[in-house]
Amino acid sequence: MHVHYALKANPDARIVAEVAKAGFGADCVSIGEVRHAIDCDIPANRCVYSGVGKTDPEIIEAINLGIECFNVESLEELHIISHLASHIGKIAPIALRINPHIDAHTHHYITTGLAENKFGIDITLFDQAIRMATTLPGLHFRGIHCHIGSQILTNEPYALLCSRINELVARAQQAGATIEYINVGGGIGVDYEQPASNPIADFQGFFDTLRQGLILPTGAHIHCELGRSIVAQCGSILSRVIYVKEGLERRFVIIDAGMNNLIRPALYQATHRIDNLSAPSSTPTAHYDIVGPVCESADTFAENYPLPRTRRGDILAIRSAGAYAASMASLYNLRCPADVIYTE
Amino acid sequence: MHVHYALKANPDARIVAEVAKAGFGADCVSIGEVRHAIDCDIPANRCVYSGVGKTDPEIIEAINLGIECFNVESLEELHIISHLASHIGKIAPIALRINPHIDAHTHHYITTGLAENKFGIDITLFDQAIRMATTLPGLHFRGIHCHIGSQILTNEPYALLCSRINELVARAQQAGATIEYINVGGGIGVDYEQPASNPIADFQGFFDTLRQGLILPTGAHIHCELGRSIVAQCGSILSRVIYVKEGLERRFVIIDAGMNNLIRPALYQATHRIDNLSAPSSTPTAHYDIVGPVCESADTFAENYPLPRTRRGDILAIRSAGAYAASMASLYNLRCPADVIYTE
Repeated sequence: MHVHYALKANPDARIVAEVAKAGFGADCVSIGEVRHAIDCDIPANRCVYSGVGKTDPEIIEAINLGIECFNVESLEELHIISHLASHIGKIAPIALRINPHIDAHTHHYITTGLAENKFGIDITLFDQAIRMATTLPGLHFRGIHCHIGSQILTNEPYALLCSRINELVARAQQAGATIEYINVGGGIGVDYEQPASNPIADFQGFFDTLRQGLILPTGAHIHCELGRSIVAQCGSILSRVIYVKEGLERRFVIIDAGMNNLIRPALYQATHRIDNLSAPSSTPTAHYDIVGPVCESADTFAENYPLPRTRRGDILAIRSAGAYAASMASLYNLRCPADVIYTE
Repeated sequence: MHVHYALKANPDARIVAEVAKAGFGADCVSIGEVRHAIDCDIPANRCVYSGVGKTDPEIIEAINLGIECFNVESLEELHIISHLASHIGKIAPIALRINPHIDAHTHHYITTGLAENKFGIDITLFDQAIRMATTLPGLHFRGIHCHIGSQILTNEPYALLCSRINELVARAQQAGATIEYINVGGGIGVDYEQPASNPIADFQGFFDTLRQGLILPTGAHIHCELGRSIVAQCGSILSRVIYVKEGLERRFVIIDAGMNNLIRPALYQATHRIDNLSAPSSTPTAHYDIVGPVCESADTFAENYPLPRTRRGDILAIRSAGAYAASMASLYNLRCPADVIYTE
C-alpha cells in the first residue's frame, strides 16, 4: 500500500517534510505542488500529478523532473502529453483517471465520481483510453486511477469501487496492458462533529476494504491519496472573542478569525466543532451565532451554537482545521494570515 | 456628496492611488485597509473604519492615526472605544451604524440591512445608542451610517433608506445630537450580464435618490461608500483554454483561471459574462461548461454557457472582474496569483 499525501489539504512545508520522512509520496494537483513536494524532499519519482488543466509548459517540466506519473483526466490530455513527450524525446509515465460512476453521497461540491463532471475519463471511454495509452508514442502506461469524492464516511463506496476497478483491470489486461498499480484515490472522511472522540479516521476499514476487494495483478501495488484524513484533526484555529454582541433574538460571538482563515463554512456550509477553551467546565451553556470580522454575512462559523457562557477575551478553538484552512486562505479585507504554531 | 472608496472591492495600490488623486476618501474594514489607504495617499482624516470585529490594539492605532471616524457596529463596541480613547487621553470620532430593517432583495449572503445579522446596531436600540454616543467619555459623535446590502439594482431601497434615515436624524436631533454627516453606505449594483452595454453603474439615479430623499441638517454632508460600482467593470480575467473536453452529454472548456482567481461563482453562485476573444464573430455558437483547473467541482464559472465554437488555445475574458476577484484570491492548490496588467 503506497500512500501519496494530497498536498492540497495542507502544503505547509513542515508537514510535507514530515510526510517525506514517513516515506509517503505526494499527490499534486499543480506544477507548484510538484515543485513544492520535491523541495520538501519527496522524491520526484514518488510524485503523481493530477488536475484537469495541466498546461504544455507544466507537462514538459513535470516530464523533465521525472515524476512518478500523470493522472490523465481526458483523452484530449492524453494526446497532448503524447505529443509533448515525443517532441522532447522522452517517455511520459501516465495513469488513466477513470470516472467510475459511483455515488459517494457527499456534498455536491466534493462528489467527483459521478458522470459528467470535469474530472476524469468517463468509464464508457475506457477501452478507447487504454488503447490510446498503450499505443500512442511517448507514453508509458502505468496504471488506473479513480477518485470518487471527499469526506466519505462509510466503506461501502470503496467496496463498490474495488469491484468496478477489478472489471477495468481485466479489460485492460485483455487489451494487453500491464498494470503496475491501482490508484484508488482518497476521500476518507473525518469526524467534524466529534473530533476529540474520533481523532483518527477509519484508515483500517479503508485499507481492509481495498485489500479484500481488489484483485491485484501480479507485481501490481495499491496506491492511495490521503490528505484531509491525515491532517484535518491535527490542527485547530485559536481565536479570541472580540465582542459578545447582544442582538434582539440572537447573541453573536464575534471572533478574530474569519472566512479569510477558514472558508469551508461559507463555501460548503461546512460545520466545524467549536470549543471555548477559557470557560470553566461548570459554566452553563448558551447559544450563539459565532461569526468572524470579515465584512460578509457569509463570514459565519456557526448559528445558534451551544457554548459555555462566553465572554469577551475568551479563546475559542475551531477544530478540524488542519486541512483546507490555511491552504484555502486569502488576504480578503487585507486581513493577516493566521500564525501557524507547531507542537509535538 | 463625499465618496469613500470601499477598499475591499479591490485594494490594488495603483487603484487606491487613483482614488486618492480623485479626492475620494476610503471605506476601510480592517486596520490593514486603514494603513494601506494612508500608504496610498488617502489622508487619514478621510478614512472611515467599519467592521464588526475591531480589536483593542486596532482601535487605539486608528485613533492615533487620526481617522475620520469609526463606523460603530454594536453598543458593546461603543463602550470599548469610549474606554480605550479615554484611557489614552484622546477623543474617538464615531458614527453609529444602524441596521434599518430594509430588504434590499439581494443574495442572502450580501444582504446586510435586515434585522439580526452581525452587522450594525438594531434600529430599535437607536435612542440608547445616541444617548451613549453623545454622553460616554472619549467619543465625538459625528453621524449616522447605514448599509443595506450589495449589488442593489433599483433605487427603491435607497428611497426607503432615505425616509428611515430622516426619521433617525430627527430623533437624534431631539436627543440633542449634532449630525455632521449621513453615511448611506454603498451597494449600487453592476450589470454582470451585459457589462459592455452597461459599463457605468447608475450613479446618477443613486445620487438623485439621495438628494431628493434626504433631509439634510444644516451643515451636514452626505457620505457614501462605493466599491464594486466603481471598479467591477474595469477589469477582465483573461484566461487561456487549455483543453476542450468532450463529455458524453456536456462539453467542458477547461481554462487556466480558477476559483483561486475568482471565487464568486463558487461562493455565491454568481455568474460573470464570458467572451471568447479569439473566435471570429462569424463562428457558430455551442454550449459549454466553463471550468477552472482547481481540484474542486466548485471551480466552475458557467454551465451550459453559449460561446462561439471554442478551441484549445483560445483566450476567454471573464468580465466584471475588477471587483472581488483579486481581493478574494488565494493560493489554493499552490496556484500562482494572476498577473495584473493596467491599461489607460
